[in-house]
Amino acid sequence: MDALVIHSAGDLRVEDVPTPPVLAHQLRVRVRFGGICGSDLHYFQHGGFGTVRVKEPMVLGHEVAGLIEEVGAEVQGFAPGERIAISPSRPCGLCRFCQRGMQNHCLDMRYYGSAMRTPHVQGAFRREIVVETSQAYKLADTLSDREGSMAEPLSVALHAVRRAGPLLGKNVLVTGCGPIGALIVVAARHAGATNIVVTDVGAYPLRSALKVGADEAINIAEQPDGLAKFTADKGQFDVLFEASGNERALRGAFDVLRPRGIVVQVGLGGEMTIPINTIVAKEFDLRGAFRFHEEFGIAVDLLNKGLVDVKPLISATVSYRDAGRAFALAADRSQAMKVLLDFD
Amino acid sequence: MDALVIHSAGDLRVEDVPTPPVLAHQLRVRVRFGGICGSDLHYFQHGGFGTVRVKEPMVLGHEVAGLIEEVGAEVQGFAPGERIAISPSRPCGLCRFCQRGMQNHCLDMRYYGSAMRTPHVQGAFRREIVVETSQAYKLADTLSDREGSMAEPLSVALHAVRRAGPLLGKNVLVTGCGPIGALIVVAARHAGATNIVVTDVGAYPLRSALKVGADEAINIAEQPDGLAKFTADKGQFDVLFEASGNERALRGAFDVLRPRGIVVQVGLGGEMTIPINTIVAKEFDLRGAFRFHEEFGIAVDLLNKGLVDVKPLISATVSYRDAGRAFALAADRSQAMKVLLDFD
Amino acid sequence: MDALVIHSAGDLRVEDVPTPPVLAHQLRVRVRFGGICGSDLHYFQHGGFGTVRVKEPMVLGHEVAGLIEEVGAEVQGFAPGERIAISPSRPCGLCRFCQRGMQNHCLDMRYYGSAMRTPHVQGAFRREIVVETSQAYKLADTLSDREGSMAEPLSVALHAVRRAGPLLGKNVLVTGCGPIGALIVVAARHAGATNIVVTDVGAYPLRSALKVGADEAINIAEQPDGLAKFTADKGQFDVLFEASGNERALRGAFDVLRPRGIVVQVGLGGEMTIPINTIVAKEFDLRGAFRFHEEFGIAVDLLNKGLVDVKPLISATVSYRDAGRAFALAADRSQAMKVLLDFD
Amino acid sequence: MDALVIHSAGDLRVEDVPTPPVLAHQLRVRVRFGGICGSDLHYFQHGGFGTVRVKEPMVLGHEVAGLIEEVGAEVQGFAPGERIAISPSRPCGLCRFCQRGMQNHCLDMRYYGSAMRTPHVQGAFRREIVVETSQAYKLADTLSDREGSMAEPLSVALHAVRRAGPLLGKNVLVTGCGPIGALIVVAARHAGATNIVVTDVGAYPLRSALKVGADEAINIAEQPDGLAKFTADKGQFDVLFEASGNERALRGAFDVLRPRGIVVQVGLGGEMTIPINTIVAKEFDLRGAFRFHEEFGIAVDLLNKGLVDVKPLISATVSYRDAGRAFALAADRSQAMKVLLDFD
Repeated sequence: MDALVIHSAGDLRVEDVPTPPVLAHQLRVRVRFGGICGSDLHYFQHGGFGTVRVKEPMVLGHEVAGLIEEVGAEVQGFAPGERIAISPSRPCGLCRFCQRGMQNHCLDMRYYGSAMRTPHVQGAFRREIVVETSQAYKLADTLSDREGSMAEPLSVALHAVRRAGPLLGKNVLVTGCGPIGALIVVAARHAGATNIVVTDVGAYPLRSALKVGADEAINIAEQPDGLAKFTADKGQFDVLFEASGNERALRGAFDVLRPRGIVVQVGLGGEMTIPINTIVAKEFDLRGAFRFHEEFGIAVDLLNKGLVDVKPLISATVSYRDAGRAFALAADRSQAMKVLLDFD
Repeated sequence: MDALVIHSAGDLRVEDVPTPPVLAHQLRVRVRFGGICGSDLHYFQHGGFGTVRVKEPMVLGHEVAGLIEEVGAEVQGFAPGERIAISPSRPCGLCRFCQRGMQNHCLDMRYYGSAMRTPHVQGAFRREIVVETSQAYKLADTLSDREGSMAEPLSVALHAVRRAGPLLGKNVLVTGCGPIGALIVVAARHAGATNIVVTDVGAYPLRSALKVGADEAINIAEQPDGLAKFTADKGQFDVLFEASGNERALRGAFDVLRPRGIVVQVGLGGEMTIPINTIVAKEFDLRGAFRFHEEFGIAVDLLNKGLVDVKPLISATVSYRDAGRAFALAADRSQAMKVLLDFD
Repeated sequence: MDALVIHSAGDLRVEDVPTPPVLAHQLRVRVRFGGICGSDLHYFQHGGFGTVRVKEPMVLGHEVAGLIEEVGAEVQGFAPGERIAISPSRPCGLCRFCQRGMQNHCLDMRYYGSAMRTPHVQGAFRREIVVETSQAYKLADTLSDREGSMAEPLSVALHAVRRAGPLLGKNVLVTGCGPIGALIVVAARHAGATNIVVTDVGAYPLRSALKVGADEAINIAEQPDGLAKFTADKGQFDVLFEASGNERALRGAFDVLRPRGIVVQVGLGGEMTIPINTIVAKEFDLRGAFRFHEEFGIAVDLLNKGLVDVKPLISATVSYRDAGRAFALAADRSQAMKVLLDFD
Repeated sequence: MDALVIHSAGDLRVEDVPTPPVLAHQLRVRVRFGGICGSDLHYFQHGGFGTVRVKEPMVLGHEVAGLIEEVGAEVQGFAPGERIAISPSRPCGLCRFCQRGMQNHCLDMRYYGSAMRTPHVQGAFRREIVVETSQAYKLADTLSDREGSMAEPLSVALHAVRRAGPLLGKNVLVTGCGPIGALIVVAARHAGATNIVVTDVGAYPLRSALKVGADEAINIAEQPDGLAKFTADKGQFDVLFEASGNERALRGAFDVLRPRGIVVQVGLGGEMTIPINTIVAKEFDLRGAFRFHEEFGIAVDLLNKGLVDVKPLISATVSYRDAGRAFALAADRSQAMKVLLDFD
């Protein structure tokens, strides 16, 4: 069946990839929709990111939902015809991190569509895929497949929010309103943040963040001093989610974050030069947030119960056969948040 | 009475400074010993640090112990002849940080010998001083005045250790073994760290750290790869105390700190360029540590009860009249950890 | 002006109580509405609770909202005509608990309408009251006075929820659906709990809890085994809020709370006999929750922004002149959650 | 080879029990010493505890150290002749608790010498035993086998201490000075507690606690009001370790534990009647502590490095052939803390 295979920067092909047989505890799934993530874009545009390079053909994609077609001989609790979101994460379960509840740091992680290890882990942008039951989370009848494919990025946002500790009653700043930044707005609102301010340099992302619950959006390109009003008493924000990966965004927030404020860094940004004395003197607590583990189940629960709404962040749906256009659109921050590939 | 007054970089004078009258809740104290801190050195060598400059004559010093000479009319619980360590910290008690137990972030802090506000807060390198009873902590008969003057830097170290959370059973790395780094070894050992490795570029500080309880000392100037043996399984250390303020020390530790490891940054170091992607992907938790509050009382308790030993870190005692020599010695990392001024 | 004064059990009188002059930092307020709390009921029905007894006439009440009539000479930020919720809590600000952010444990607390100290602290069920500006929180134009008077019990619920730590993605059980239990449902939902089950012995409270967001309501009187379906894998709930003060409710939840589950005990219940071995073997974490401090401001923010809806919990409004009927209604769990007194 | 087998209350026999063959990842160990635990005593005296009963013959014992005699074909890192402490705990590694770092709550736990499941899990009071490598922790040359057999109860104490959070600078009360209470003194001291007060009703346990680091010992039988001096300002202790399982000990500590104080309940004690209103009003945080997991490795590290000294708690060593006398001695609190069985 067809799959989207990256060969090198700019070389993304639709290829026929065989579907392996279904083992006893596995499911064969007809993929319906797959969201294009920033890392997919990096593979497409640059052939990788940081020191990670595509060294062999690799199926892209890790944000998918689909329909169960066949269940293995010993599978319980799943049946053909059921709709699921698929977690792209397969930790080993045995290493010292897995045994301490830190599966996202597994010493032998296999994560869909990632060139971090060789052979690469093949991804999920394919019409048909075989998955473990541990990766399958059922979608409620009230939830569309499109929304189901948002479970993965929502998991990333929920994990970032959980890294911040309790948000009930907190004043929150989110710098960078791409899909992850906007989903952090969704998750932070759901977790009880009282006030959420977002910044970005683009009008479209800011409008999207407002649609999903931000209280105030500041275009930092147009208003470089837009945050200045929050500097009183050593800073008015309790928590910063830095989702831009931009050094200026991080530095710019230091004046408005109160002493003992928490910074959750989600955006990847290479080397950054930061005023370490400010971190010391204001005793900030800067925490990285990377992927997720049990948040995938939480994300599907929230979507299934209608406790969060991610529909405003789905900007477009494009056939996988038109992947080039889909990736170009996904890269255009002036008109797209999340772009979904349609695999039907 | 005599005091050590800084006028500008290199211009430190012994001057006669009047002792104010003792108010109802105050104590007049004969200062015995005062430790020279890195910030005292900065004022002496550079006239300040960062954006902080000496703009008017200022008595230096904030690490002192002495003898009560006179008590105010309404003072209870203190009597002339008693020996005390003096906390240099006077938070307002009323601001939103004081009311939340974060007195070290007080919006109206007065801290001895600091030019951060103007008029500057005069310091404690003087033969006689009047203090609030809230600043006075009694020394046990078994404790020398010299050791008592170590309560302040020990408080800084205890605060840094408390910022790290529980250390029982933890594997700890301390980068930088000046007086604060070495006192962090003392405090981390006391807090139950199982293994403590220290790094520095000087032989004398490393030897001092071993004397106060480090398990292993690595001279990173002689062995640039000295930490390489700790990289297995994504890093062997649970907690890093960065006490050098050196960018290379911080970066160099990222490979040996395990995922979700905690970095307590104590050293001041201006701008640092760091690989933010590593913080994200390993989900480090980088926390600033600044001064102290209730740790001063804890420090004096530990010293009084003999639960920690700071004597190996007192390198020399020099008369305040010979302050130039004392400051030169304090700046010489090849032969000095803490240098005390003798005010008798 | 009129006030509701308790003299002894059953002896509640409308009396004329003089309004003191307004000092420089105070406000004179026309009280609009006041909610009847369980402790007000206890004073009325029993003359006190536990060892606390009414020993002298005391104005009842601590859940009120009203209109500013006059501001003191040095008041800033408040003006006549503004509507406020009034916090009944006046901690000293100076004791060791206040200085550590634990103002609800103040060593010199003054709390409206409480006989815990003698002379008693007079309450707020009066047509006119003078308060400190620190007790005043402005209501948004979109919020009614009735809702404003719910800020106090909502604060209690928010404090209980904050005692539980983060609720995002958690499975929550609330035992006891009086006004506090139901407000905990509101607060836990707002804090991101995924699933909330409530139990009670009355149909009306359970219906009320469902109205404000509970997912499932179990009448434990009709279905004594109603929780049995949650016992799998050592228990399915992550967090229990015990808001009934009933020993059987607490014990009954132990089988359905998972190991390391958190119990927040809010309900007061005298002596309880509990299986301590279960707490040990399942390593429960049982935390008391008492009153609130900074949650009052959070409560008003949430109400002002419309982030929570407490209107379904206001069962009736009765003139203060008809206090006997109001108290009787408030005590009738078959038809009342919160009953408000109207002071106009 | 010989083993100590319990058949019913009072019926403890030395029997020949076959040693199974050594599988690929296993070790055959010559047991040297085994400590008698409170649960061993319960099986011996009462045939069980609570609802747990001995239903079939069961080898007792779970605190042992010994010598490796043979290693399985694929074992790495262990060799015959090496001395080890043996962890009695074998969690499944796969269940939802194991995968979250809560192995002591494993849904399929096998713990030596426990009748909690049937067939019972056979224990380690035997001359020869086959164990998994995951259960084996090497002893340093400087550590005796006797001390090595203390690793297990020390693990229990370390786990209790870790349940309390950081102890640095804390004021600690330990009620009950049996072996676990005394080892909690050792662990709390090591974790940085500033002051440790212990209570018991027996002179011998109290003397033992003082030997291992308690600051003050109060015989509550002789001085029923011995704790009264700690009631000032709502209580002077930050943390209580309740290691007696006695209701009066727990209740008696409530007046001397400060608001937001932490109670770690380690002692098993059946039903207890407690003033729940005090837990609410003082917002105590009562946490169960049960067994251990990663603390076993920490315990062996601490013993190996000489960071703690448990020798004063080893009261006697008795041949396993004289088990009756050994158990009688272990039950006599007037002259015994830990009694070791000698299996040579």
